[in-house]
Amino acid sequence: MRNLTMLTDLYQLTMMYGYEKEQKSEEIVAFDLFYRRTTGDSAYAIAAGLEQVVELIENLHFSQEDISYLRGLGLFDEAFLTRLQSIKFTGDIDAMPEGTAVFPNEPIIRVKGPIFEAQLLETALLNIVNHQTLIATKASRVVQAAQGDSVLEFGLRRAQGPDAGIYGARAAIIGGCHATSNVLAGKEFNIPVQGTHGHSWIMSFDSELEAFRAYANAFPDSCLLLVDTYDTLKMGIPNAITVFQELKEKGKKPLGIRLDSGDLAYLSKKARKMLDRAGFPDAKIVASSDLDENIIWDLKAQGAAVDIWGVGTAMITSKDYPALGGVYKLVAEGSNGKLIPRIKISENVAKITNPGYKKVVRLYDKAAKKAVADLIMLDHETIDESKPLTIFDPIDTWKRMTLTNYETKELLVPIFRNGKRVYELPPLSKIQDHARQEMDSLWDEYKRLTKPHVYKVDLSQELYDLKNMLLKEYSFKK
Amino acid sequence: MRNLTMLTDLYQLTMMYGYEKEQKSEEIVAFDLFYRRTTGDSAYAIAAGLEQVVELIENLHFSQEDISYLRGLGLFDEAFLTRLQSIKFTGDIDAMPEGTAVFPNEPIIRVKGPIFEAQLLETALLNIVNHQTLIATKASRVVQAAQGDSVLEFGLRRAQGPDAGIYGARAAIIGGCHATSNVLAGKEFNIPVQGTHGHSWIMSFDSELEAFRAYANAFPDSCLLLVDTYDTLKMGIPNAITVFQELKEKGKKPLGIRLDSGDLAYLSKKARKMLDRAGFPDAKIVASSDLDENIIWDLKAQGAAVDIWGVGTAMITSKDYPALGGVYKLVAEGSNGKLIPRIKISENVAKITNPGYKKVVRLYDKAAKKAVADLIMLDHETIDESKPLTIFDPIDTWKRMTLTNYETKELLVPIFRNGKRVYELPPLSKIQDHARQEMDSLWDEYKRLTKPHVYKVDLSQELYDLKNMLLKEYSFKK
Repeated sequence: MRNLTMLTDLYQLTMMYGYEKEQKSEEIVAFDLFYRRTTGDSAYAIAAGLEQVVELIENLHFSQEDISYLRGLGLFDEAFLTRLQSIKFTGDIDAMPEGTAVFPNEPIIRVKGPIFEAQLLETALLNIVNHQTLIATKASRVVQAAQGDSVLEFGLRRAQGPDAGIYGARAAIIGGCHATSNVLAGKEFNIPVQGTHGHSWIMSFDSELEAFRAYANAFPDSCLLLVDTYDTLKMGIPNAITVFQELKEKGKKPLGIRLDSGDLAYLSKKARKMLDRAGFPDAKIVASSDLDENIIWDLKAQGAAVDIWGVGTAMITSKDYPALGGVYKLVAEGSNGKLIPRIKISENVAKITNPGYKKVVRLYDKAAKKAVADLIMLDHETIDESKPLTIFDPIDTWKRMTLTNYETKELLVPIFRNGKRVYELPPLSKIQDHARQEMDSLWDEYKRLTKPHVYKVDLSQELYDLKNMLLKEYSFKK
Repeated sequence: MRNLTMLTDLYQLTMMYGYEKEQKSEEIVAFDLFYRRTTGDSAYAIAAGLEQVVELIENLHFSQEDISYLRGLGLFDEAFLTRLQSIKFTGDIDAMPEGTAVFPNEPIIRVKGPIFEAQLLETALLNIVNHQTLIATKASRVVQAAQGDSVLEFGLRRAQGPDAGIYGARAAIIGGCHATSNVLAGKEFNIPVQGTHGHSWIMSFDSELEAFRAYANAFPDSCLLLVDTYDTLKMGIPNAITVFQELKEKGKKPLGIRLDSGDLAYLSKKARKMLDRAGFPDAKIVASSDLDENIIWDLKAQGAAVDIWGVGTAMITSKDYPALGGVYKLVAEGSNGKLIPRIKISENVAKITNPGYKKVVRLYDKAAKKAVADLIMLDHETIDESKPLTIFDPIDTWKRMTLTNYETKELLVPIFRNGKRVYELPPLSKIQDHARQEMDSLWDEYKRLTKPHVYKVDLSQELYDLKNMLLKEYSFKK
């Protein structure tokens, strides 16, 4: 397994060195990993990346080579380098299971442990979770746009490096894609892989028909032909039909055709008619060519006869919004075995953090089985489901709502306790199922592709009071 | 070294299987890797990723585990799987050295070899070159905007996975960045690493002043303080100055301060005055906070007193344009030891390929030492520099220009011959130097951040004629 312990910003190491010098590196602290704003037009995000976070933490160590490199920087003393060599994570981590629908300001992961260890994790956790959550969210939108049609992940060649392709494919599956073209991701995560042939196959033969015949000969049981190399309607589809008829005579059933250029609404409707008329009503039409959720939505609205959508660049890079701005903020600090809440002030109100060691509770309407709101609470707080619950907007506090027939679910689950993993990592297919159930539990208003309704993320009264108290303390200090 | 042989789209393998079935897998073909449109507002791109392409090719092999996985797909026969186990690249590759300024439609890499091998390389080559070229180009723009100030790469936490951070940092250095915060990239590629402390350092102490003192104590010789945790002008900078004076009394020279929020033009000018007045005219001001080339350009135009720019998300993801659309197209196919040019037709004229085994020649004005135009030519063509050369626009052919006092340079250099590497990979610092020289060789008009002038990429008369002949042949066929 690749060791990503050094996948960190230098300032984590200089801070760790400073904590050692100040003899406070064993101080227990708590960090929250959360994002402040939604990705692009989406009201929600789909949490992803936890499996790789767990791998990172279980494999945490500096090699001798790493230590030599760090020594060579001339910044650290030998005592510190020795301390690094024995580093391991000894604290507690709680996280939302992958596939969970998450909203702004909610801790996706909370880390409690010695500051020396918790600080080291910051950069790698953000890198992994920001990326996979971003792509899972984008994929979820694309899958919604496809309204039940299969979506294939085709983006490897445009992904931002090998990992972006590999973990991007993984995240796309979490978001609901059916398969990927990426063979390495397929092997690594047991994802179905799909793919047939490209234009170069056609061009390497003297004619398109000859190329189609050769492909049908190699894959008589899974023959899917790319029909747009020369002229889709005049050559590609007629040639495909010729070869399909030849397959049929041999008792084989062709899979279908792929369109990769031109107007996909027009061409797919024409193609459907041609295939149906020729006796191939079951032949599928796959479409690709710079697709994203909005184009798919529009093509479907225009009656495109596409059965399967291959989506590349826009999904694998989350092209319109290529970075989730997740952050990792200190929220509490230990003193004599107790965690004292800390707040990060900012002139930008949106950047003021929620202090304290917290959890996230989702409130469901019991009758409709739909999520109504989330509540960020302090860890020790409880909710009595038998009593009405009044929640309020943390900015416009006059916006209040009282719930009666509701049930609650805690979203953060224990992953590590005292450095030991207490969570079994589910297979990717289960994560995809969970994400699908999460989507089902949200009203359509929150899933609209453009201008979705904002989902309520409120603070408990106790957390709200704590936050305001700390803000007042701060303004006195000033 | 990580084996990326399986980093491919399934359709490369299905095509390779088809070639085997057709007994044409040893047929010699040529592919060009090029991009069609510039990235966002940039007229040029900076080629990058060749080193990782070479590593991939030299390390090309399927493990037993890979073969078992492929067998399990149920698509391939044993003869094919056996053939895969002995695969290696036996052909020729020419490429632009990393750091070369490249323009649309110019082959960055050309591959000649058995179709079985050349086809396998497609996806991984595109993934690597698309990513690194994208980020090197973006970095080059940011560095230009900084007009001589240092630029630091700070994006790891928002990069699209570990590799996007690691190879993104590498590409950012090629584009002209001075250092990275990414420790793993620093170690891997011998890049200077930089970083001091974050807000969590400050928050983990009872007061900002105490936190600054502790940091100065840990790093007396490289003390750079983040001053915006509570109140930049009223607390942060005064506290930093207090600590700087304490350092000065101990004979130490502080490095400076970092601003990470607020209006960086206003704050940096105020900070500069405060530091100067306190006797620290050499203390540097580092600025970070969602910067990109346009913001840096504007801040500098408003007289921001920033010495060093830390750039994160926008550069590491190329946020406004997160994918370079590089493609890998079959341009020739062997027949009896000769390469026959092939053309890819498209209803979209911009997608019609330039056929044949080609090279790229850059034409320089001998007096000004600046690049004037590039010429894509067939490999066998030569230019006699002692004679005037007339070039013409391949679309608007009436646009002609005759060069007299010029010199030429071939941009593609031999990398592999018969599968053996014939090119020595330069260290990253040399690549950065090369990129800087390339930028110096371009007129400012092509480097403007917005609406740059379009650089001339013309076709030789012979290539132009060949292309038109093949297009005519095609339209007769149709």
